[in-house]
Amino acid sequence: MWCQSCKEEYDEDDAGTCKECYEEASETEEELKREIDDLRSRLHFLRLPSPTLDVSALGHSDLLLHAIPASPSFFSSDAAASEAAHPDTPAIPAHRVILASRSPVFRAMLENEMEESRSGIIKIYDVSYDVLRAFVHYMYTAEALLDEQMASDLLVLAEKYEVKNLKAYCEKFLTSKVNNDNAITHYAFAHRHSAKQLLETSLSAIMDSMSTLADREEYKELVEKDPRLVVEIYEAYLNRQVNTAAGKETDCSSRKG
Amino acid sequence: MWCQSCKEEYDEDDAGTCKECYEEASETEEELKREIDDLRSRLHFLRLPSPTLDVSALGHSDLLLHAIPASPSFFSSDAAASEAAHPDTPAIPAHRVILASRSPVFRAMLENEMEESRSGIIKIYDVSYDVLRAFVHYMYTAEALLDEQMASDLLVLAEKYEVKNLKAYCEKFLTSKVNNDNAITHYAFAHRHSAKQLLETSLSAIMDSMSTLADREEYKELVEKDPRLVVEIYEAYLNRQVNTAAGKETDCSSRKG
Repeated sequence: MWCQSCKEEYDEDDAGTCKECYEEASETEEELKREIDDLRSRLHFLRLPSPTLDVSALGHSDLLLHAIPASPSFFSSDAAASEAAHPDTPAIPAHRVILASRSPVFRAMLENEMEESRSGIIKIYDVSYDVLRAFVHYMYTAEALLDEQMASDLLVLAEKYEVKNLKAYCEKFLTSKVNNDNAITHYAFAHRHSAKQLLETSLSAIMDSMSTLADREEYKELVEKDPRLVVEIYEAYLNRQVNTAAGKETDCSSRKG
Repeated sequence: MWCQSCKEEYDEDDAGTCKECYEEASETEEELKREIDDLRSRLHFLRLPSPTLDVSALGHSDLLLHAIPASPSFFSSDAAASEAAHPDTPAIPAHRVILASRSPVFRAMLENEMEESRSGIIKIYDVSYDVLRAFVHYMYTAEALLDEQMASDLLVLAEKYEVKNLKAYCEKFLTSKVNNDNAITHYAFAHRHSAKQLLETSLSAIMDSMSTLADREEYKELVEKDPRLVVEIYEAYLNRQVNTAAGKETDCSSRKG
């Protein structure tokens, strides 16, 4: 038999698909591609010019956001992070209607005639200028350029202001970066910020190398800082061992039966 | 041979595809579906609460749009259309940043300290309240519920304010509705509003029933109102006849050769 798609010959014993099924699969592909084009065009339309890039958007801005950096975040323990604490970073212009529509926290703040609503000035604490800039950019464009540091900083901000989409986006990115070396750090971070997917993935990575766990610096730190989290690791590990053992037993008994 | 997808037997002479090609097609489908999910979630995030529906969005509005209906539009020749001319329709609230980002015309109006920018009141002429409402709704959501009347009214407004996405959306809808009965009306409309796709489709539908063209009421009206458009129909028709004849000739000579 000759494959009608790649034109290579294939063995009769190899299961192939008939012409109709293959054509149906191709048609679905065409439909999906048309849908993607349509969604992209609507997305392009709805995307707003970010006030962090487009100066022409500034004319209508009715808010100013100030980044007030504080303690360095969990990931950046080096001294370089304190450079962001420079007091002279410019304010970032924004629009009430955009922030209020993206974040229930901003909405409550701006609708309830609080100090921020009257003055049009919002101070965002514990965040560097660059992170606030990326945050505002996302509010207008649904786009963010991430590395691990930026993703964790943005996740914290997204959680604080209840911007679910951004939190999920950052969590997905961080989850994809979990490995044996950073699993404990990510596990602790996920716990603090209720990031379920990241928690599960990092916990699973930790359990995959339990034999070296107790030697790690991050482990010792965690025992010191938050021993309950370490207990949860051991409980999950024990639970997995019990389940695996039970699974093997069922396997054996069903084979015997 | 048995198809691995639908499990039906198929003839060896029927070209089938090998397992690898079919699996590749299915994988692409999965990837496309993931992309669609991602685009939908970003679209959902960027979609703004429409001030025509969501009263909570009104708090931050800094513009009021007034619909000033005038002559009935091309499609609605009946008297019912004049009902829209009621002077007491409410103003529609909106936001400078949204209108300016979606339409170069609004942008110029609002940035150049024109009367509208100072007062925050924009009069939209020759449009009913319902159409203006649908227009504003689209500016916030990239969504519009269309029938033929609404699509043509919105297309006119979208052209006037240079909202390309909306114009294309309406034109696509109208193009899908072209038939022998409405082809002349659509053709004249497409001409007036530079809607190329609609123009081609309606011209093609007109040429498919040339024998009855001269009897139609819309034809007689068009000859009266804009005879140049009628000339263009005949020119296109003649052109097609010449091409078809030339095609047949090539066909015959190649067969002879």
